[in-house]
Amino acid sequence: MILEGLVTTLSPEGELNIAPMGPKIPADLSLGTFVLRPYRSSTTYRNLKAGGSGVFHITDDVLLLARTAIGAALDPPPATTPARAVLGRVLADACRYYEFRPIVVDDIDERTTVLVETLAEGRIRDFLGFNRAKHAVVEAAILATRTAFLPLSEILEEFQKFSVIVDKTGGPAEREALDLLLDHVRRSSRPPLESKAPSS
Amino acid sequence: MILEGLVTTLSPEGELNIAPMGPKIPADLSLGTFVLRPYRSSTTYRNLKAGGSGVFHITDDVLLLARTAIGAALDPPPATTPARAVLGRVLADACRYYEFRPIVVDDIDERTTVLVETLAEGRIRDFLGFNRAKHAVVEAAILATRTAFLPLSEILEEFQKFSVIVDKTGGPAEREALDLLLDHVRRSSRPPLESKAPSS
Repeated sequence: MILEGLVTTLSPEGELNIAPMGPKIPADLSLGTFVLRPYRSSTTYRNLKAGGSGVFHITDDVLLLARTAIGAALDPPPATTPARAVLGRVLADACRYYEFRPIVVDDIDERTTVLVETLAEGRIRDFLGFNRAKHAVVEAAILATRTAFLPLSEILEEFQKFSVIVDKTGGPAEREALDLLLDHVRRSSRPPLESKAPSS
Repeated sequence: MILEGLVTTLSPEGELNIAPMGPKIPADLSLGTFVLRPYRSSTTYRNLKAGGSGVFHITDDVLLLARTAIGAALDPPPATTPARAVLGRVLADACRYYEFRPIVVDDIDERTTVLVETLAEGRIRDFLGFNRAKHAVVEAAILATRTAFLPLSEILEEFQKFSVIVDKTGGPAEREALDLLLDHVRRSSRPPLESKAPSS
């Protein structure tokens, strides 16, 4: 099963990185060990490869999820507290978190496989539950990172459906998150070829 | 904000009814009071109108959600415990629950508006978090109840997308739930007009 959340890591210089990630978790939903699949080009991979640990967070904060998915500025950065069992940071507004260290790193492929084990965990607050708007933002965030592979028209068509769901079932944070992603999609997609008027 | 979950009510004869419902909750996400919108034709409405109370549950059990959405047999029925503050039943495997009584019932329209207040609440376990497969089942369950309004081809096209997401990110319960909904869609949709071969 894939559980979408946020991973924090620290660079060797101590700089915080927050990245959306969907680890593979065991069928019994325990997170004693789980598998991350960061790309070799990602900061999460580099930080883990450099010997760092991390914290995986379950959260329903889709605005933060959207921001980190497209690399938007986090200003001010979200509040964090020090992790207990690893050198890392816990997102203070997350629902639950798992402090982990990598135990096996397989980085032959561009998309790596990092088996991690949980050294400490905690719960801060409840995950809201099934809200269609929040989930539409999750799907939109995934789509927004695929502008290089998918035609813009197809992405915008999906965003139109997400927009209806967000207006119907979400609040201001979900609307802001979707608008942010839509803006990113528009800016990062190649403009369609202009058809020039034939010169007479 | 709309939060999808399950409402249990009892008939005057004491028969348990479980129905999926998306109450409107306040922006601060407190559930001290919230609004249900059951149809006049629904058992939930009839039970509340007859003076009954109910329990709203937040759950990530999409198989139960799918079953109740299409009125499938619940055999065996899910385990329940008696509510504390109202005459009602609490789903034993839910994540959180809110025992409520109606305070205002506006049933002029076919889709009624029932303002309820929470008399007791509890938490049993954590909601898993963002899992794309579980959410695909939620969207599929909503779609599966709209076969009377939407063309079958459109519904099946969406189910095809849900199926990819469920296989990629879900477990056996999500697969079973989606298959159940797909079967319901196929059975409840009118068959397409057959194009007869022209008689020669």
